[in-house]
Amino acid sequence: MEKIKVAVVGYGTIGKRVADAVRLQDDMELVGVTAHSYNYKMLAANEKGIPLYKTAEPGNLGTLKTQGSFEDLLKQVDIVVDCTPRLQGAENKKKFYKPNKIKAIFQGGEKQDSAEISFNAQTNYKEAVGKDYIRVVSCNTTGLCRTLGAIKKKYGIEAVHATMIRRGADPWDIRHGPINAIVPHLELPSHHGADVQSVMPDVNIFTTAMSVSSTLMHVHSITVDCKETPNAEEVAKLFEKTTRIRMVDNESQVRSTAEVMEFAKDLGRGRSDMPEIIVWKEGIGVTGKKLLYIQAVHQESDVICENIDAIRAAMGVEDAKASIEKTNKSLDIDTCYGCAGGVCEIPE
Amino acid sequence: MEKIKVAVVGYGTIGKRVADAVRLQDDMELVGVTAHSYNYKMLAANEKGIPLYKTAEPGNLGTLKTQGSFEDLLKQVDIVVDCTPRLQGAENKKKFYKPNKIKAIFQGGEKQDSAEISFNAQTNYKEAVGKDYIRVVSCNTTGLCRTLGAIKKKYGIEAVHATMIRRGADPWDIRHGPINAIVPHLELPSHHGADVQSVMPDVNIFTTAMSVSSTLMHVHSITVDCKETPNAEEVAKLFEKTTRIRMVDNESQVRSTAEVMEFAKDLGRGRSDMPEIIVWKEGIGVTGKKLLYIQAVHQESDVICENIDAIRAAMGVEDAKASIEKTNKSLDIDTCYGCAGGVCEIPE
Amino acid sequence: MEKIKVAVVGYGTIGKRVADAVRLQDDMELVGVTAHSYNYKMLAANEKGIPLYKTAEPGNLGTLKTQGSFEDLLKQVDIVVDCTPRLQGAENKKKFYKPNKIKAIFQGGEKQDSAEISFNAQTNYKEAVGKDYIRVVSCNTTGLCRTLGAIKKKYGIEAVHATMIRRGADPWDIRHGPINAIVPHLELPSHHGADVQSVMPDVNIFTTAMSVSSTLMHVHSITVDCKETPNAEEVAKLFEKTTRIRMVDNESQVRSTAEVMEFAKDLGRGRSDMPEIIVWKEGIGVTGKKLLYIQAVHQESDVICENIDAIRAAMGVEDAKASIEKTNKSLDIDTCYGCAGGVCEIPE
Amino acid sequence: MEKIKVAVVGYGTIGKRVADAVRLQDDMELVGVTAHSYNYKMLAANEKGIPLYKTAEPGNLGTLKTQGSFEDLLKQVDIVVDCTPRLQGAENKKKFYKPNKIKAIFQGGEKQDSAEISFNAQTNYKEAVGKDYIRVVSCNTTGLCRTLGAIKKKYGIEAVHATMIRRGADPWDIRHGPINAIVPHLELPSHHGADVQSVMPDVNIFTTAMSVSSTLMHVHSITVDCKETPNAEEVAKLFEKTTRIRMVDNESQVRSTAEVMEFAKDLGRGRSDMPEIIVWKEGIGVTGKKLLYIQAVHQESDVICENIDAIRAAMGVEDAKASIEKTNKSLDIDTCYGCAGGVCEIPE
Repeated sequence: MEKIKVAVVGYGTIGKRVADAVRLQDDMELVGVTAHSYNYKMLAANEKGIPLYKTAEPGNLGTLKTQGSFEDLLKQVDIVVDCTPRLQGAENKKKFYKPNKIKAIFQGGEKQDSAEISFNAQTNYKEAVGKDYIRVVSCNTTGLCRTLGAIKKKYGIEAVHATMIRRGADPWDIRHGPINAIVPHLELPSHHGADVQSVMPDVNIFTTAMSVSSTLMHVHSITVDCKETPNAEEVAKLFEKTTRIRMVDNESQVRSTAEVMEFAKDLGRGRSDMPEIIVWKEGIGVTGKKLLYIQAVHQESDVICENIDAIRAAMGVEDAKASIEKTNKSLDIDTCYGCAGGVCEIPE
Repeated sequence: MEKIKVAVVGYGTIGKRVADAVRLQDDMELVGVTAHSYNYKMLAANEKGIPLYKTAEPGNLGTLKTQGSFEDLLKQVDIVVDCTPRLQGAENKKKFYKPNKIKAIFQGGEKQDSAEISFNAQTNYKEAVGKDYIRVVSCNTTGLCRTLGAIKKKYGIEAVHATMIRRGADPWDIRHGPINAIVPHLELPSHHGADVQSVMPDVNIFTTAMSVSSTLMHVHSITVDCKETPNAEEVAKLFEKTTRIRMVDNESQVRSTAEVMEFAKDLGRGRSDMPEIIVWKEGIGVTGKKLLYIQAVHQESDVICENIDAIRAAMGVEDAKASIEKTNKSLDIDTCYGCAGGVCEIPE
Repeated sequence: MEKIKVAVVGYGTIGKRVADAVRLQDDMELVGVTAHSYNYKMLAANEKGIPLYKTAEPGNLGTLKTQGSFEDLLKQVDIVVDCTPRLQGAENKKKFYKPNKIKAIFQGGEKQDSAEISFNAQTNYKEAVGKDYIRVVSCNTTGLCRTLGAIKKKYGIEAVHATMIRRGADPWDIRHGPINAIVPHLELPSHHGADVQSVMPDVNIFTTAMSVSSTLMHVHSITVDCKETPNAEEVAKLFEKTTRIRMVDNESQVRSTAEVMEFAKDLGRGRSDMPEIIVWKEGIGVTGKKLLYIQAVHQESDVICENIDAIRAAMGVEDAKASIEKTNKSLDIDTCYGCAGGVCEIPE
Repeated sequence: MEKIKVAVVGYGTIGKRVADAVRLQDDMELVGVTAHSYNYKMLAANEKGIPLYKTAEPGNLGTLKTQGSFEDLLKQVDIVVDCTPRLQGAENKKKFYKPNKIKAIFQGGEKQDSAEISFNAQTNYKEAVGKDYIRVVSCNTTGLCRTLGAIKKKYGIEAVHATMIRRGADPWDIRHGPINAIVPHLELPSHHGADVQSVMPDVNIFTTAMSVSSTLMHVHSITVDCKETPNAEEVAKLFEKTTRIRMVDNESQVRSTAEVMEFAKDLGRGRSDMPEIIVWKEGIGVTGKKLLYIQAVHQESDVICENIDAIRAAMGVEDAKASIEKTNKSLDIDTCYGCAGGVCEIPE
């Protein structure tokens, strides 16, 4: 079978990870990534043997070696994963992908109507099969879809309120703060709720957000008014057997986002990433029909596996379960101690 | 009329502020504070002319000048405000206050049964009048009582869920972290809910908490299932006219806890404190009967005015409104731009 | 005697403090400050009764009440303290101050040639007497001048190397980082050395700088190759009796910038400022002719007293010592425990 | 040839990295590591197939599977790498290693006299050959030895002053601060200078230190009074060809410790480590005979390669260059863009 030929356009936090992940798939080939400026990210890509192509807009590439122009790159591929900054993807679609009849995967920073479907693999893979333009929802939305999807199936959802405590900046970002403040997002509701509804339209959800002085992960404090009375232990088991969710516990001293990230290092994960949504066992509580839980989202990596599945869906691969399992295996997802050997629940 | 003679036992974050506040009351006299160790706090107290007395347990006082022993201090006072570390107050009560028949105010770190009543001035001042031992609830509980009290009176409360995003350490505390993590409190519910119920027994409340890398204020994300449908603008007005709550807004660039603290500096507040509970106007939202709002609590100062009122209640001053207004005036509370000249709602 | 009529142009971190300080001088009158935007700083100014005037460039003042235009303000004053952002002062000088023949004090963000003299009160007050345009050097340079001036007089200076560990952003600033990084300033030498030479031209100094995740103070690690062999205890005494330097020590638990700032709160300083340069007693070391010491600079406040003295110098007040002492007294400087009652060394 | 049989005692920040590194050496075998408590580190070790043995002191191992007792472990090995907390290594030596005639490598937290030699591979490998007890100096000392060794050989050293800006806590450590402070180390000189002299006895060095709110790396601001006049560009080249030093530059946007760590991720390093000492090209300056430079030390990983070389030295492998090159290759050190293909200077 021919491999899917993939280009990554935009080589930043998400782009570089998608490129790494594509290289790990036996049914895909990374034709190249775009390079705009001389910097350590591109130097490392060069060193790893990733082919670089110039961006459409000329930049300053210094001594970097490229394999050709942006057009050269597009000519060779079946599909582009567009990881450019917010709203530039829609621009690229109009100027490059549509005229060249190339399929494209966009990120959550694009508007919903930039693509035919907003995507979360374990929620709506099937509906995305064969689409030309798929939008992988943002890191926070992805995290909400994974756990709410499981809850909804089991107990039904009346209403959800989530407070997102967001990392102020990514680990490499030295420009942005806050250094010493908690910064509430003063627009209510935050956009995350509506974004969840782009994937799960019938979920009644209201979200608020704030930023704090950390670079590591987002944390969500979630309250779900369930239709049927939930049970905390049962919820823990439910999450344990749901794919791309990892249960951790106080007992094993994973007490914070810092320790989650250290655990990822200890497990030998690529770039020390933790693509699974983390749920603390001791942080699950029930009062009446209200379920409360605390989850953490590794903003840099949880959408990477989604992008890989989205590529397959766009290219017509019909079996969601097979794609998810293949992606998981390649990225070492679901081999945690807790559920090792367990059967991960993956939607049919 | 004779002034109430007050001793402050434990001269830390709360103790030093209570001492300052007592000195501002025309119906109280600060007889002295206890000194245990030579440090900058005691040096500053000395410089300000605050009389120091030795603690019961001997410490290292270096060149500090004291006015006498712990017993000397107790002999001269009507009431003690005990601001010693968690659980030491109960010890002191047994060993010193009870045998000497001295009334005492305790802080939120003591257990509920250490006192006859858990106290929040605008909620239950009347019930505390004449009591010998009053416990002022913690900073977070105080913050919850102030806003929930107003909500309850207006709309009725079915259930409350609050997520507290706590400052990791006080501004002066260089020992504690986290430096770069979000640390969920992995006991559910957190103790704050039960503590609110010590003041407002009939409120159904569930609280979760986490710590972040900031020294400035706690922030609460609160969801209230109201009995009657609330209205966001009306809630803003309700908070505006409730005492010891200060509405701020994005429009005036108070967008974070850092800017709240800077505002306190700009207002010329003592020690740059902000004793009012801060509620963001743009952070109030309503969906159905659910009311959501975000508030910030200055952990070092919001309970100081409560201690002053508790002193009066313990000493038999019956008029809650008069005490609250007197305390407010002395501490420059409620003279904010927003509600200047307004009538602050104070319980009869 | 007629009071000096002062306007403050630019009401930010420095401007608002200069305005407060001018109001504390019995030989000065604050005619007004400029207001450009509606925000909490201006609301607080309004509340404190500080007259506001519109800026030359129209802004959005919302409900703020102003007393007139920028021209109205300039007409009434003898001198302007220009605290506008970097390089705008030179612009204002050309467009407003020079044509209107008004004297002006500029801040360290302006270039050296924007004024007739770069100023540090205890170093070169006399040379500034009667000048029309005086530039108060930046917070870091002010800190270096204060301590190096004393060292130079006593031991002579062969060469200085200082590493400045800078706070990443001011306390109120939620936009800037770093959140979790040490960021070296990659231009060598940093500009601070040349700026010291604008005040002390014959000092051979080389400076490097880096930014860290703190909002509180800059810290300098300083090595001086002295001409004569210094002695650590003697240096401590020298600093103790030099004005606007405050010795602190580990013994009194002032172990960090956080505790310095808490000490300022405990002392009841306005805005909780610490205008003195802080030197740690236990941080002074000598090896051969090399003197090493560690000092901390409160970036928001150490230049405020310098601005007040600069006003007097510009207006022809000849007695440096009298001005410095008057300013100190008004701002509660030099009443620290360590040197209370001591004779502060002030240049003749 | 028979493989060297190694045990790692103490499986924390250093121990787990040494274990990983030993497993990458073709002349070594990791017999096992000690496990004391059930936690995520041990779970990950289990998952990676690392044999666990109980510590001498019994702990709580929960469901962890171990291969035997501490004695069982010691019986099987030629050498122990002791990575236990400060000062416990000396204890272990007396109680276990000496009686059992097992060689041991200790870490920098042990006193100098705990071993026969304090070790830095590229400085004094030869002197360590065949020794029974070798102490690998601490991360900071290792960093200083690497760069000062090169400087000394080329220009001679009259005197060194280094200010170490230390990370406040390791990335996983949520307990320690400071959150918002710069904390000078108030003992002069700091211990680092004397520790450098344990490896390079004839270097006149004076060190000061402070802690900041970062978890990522230590940064050193270093001044060297050279015997011969240095040249900045020449120094950059010198460092480029010295092993285990990596030159980075502003031009490639490696402007901070955060970006160094991101670069390590991008290079695919194990645990995202950066074992080389980082020197910024634009941070090298010369004034007269004074050389100034800024370097960063990854506190978690720079000593790991040293431990591997120390094992070989202890076991009698005589060729320093061969050991260093072998270790480097296994850990992917020295394949940076800057010096790729260059000849790394390694002591004969």
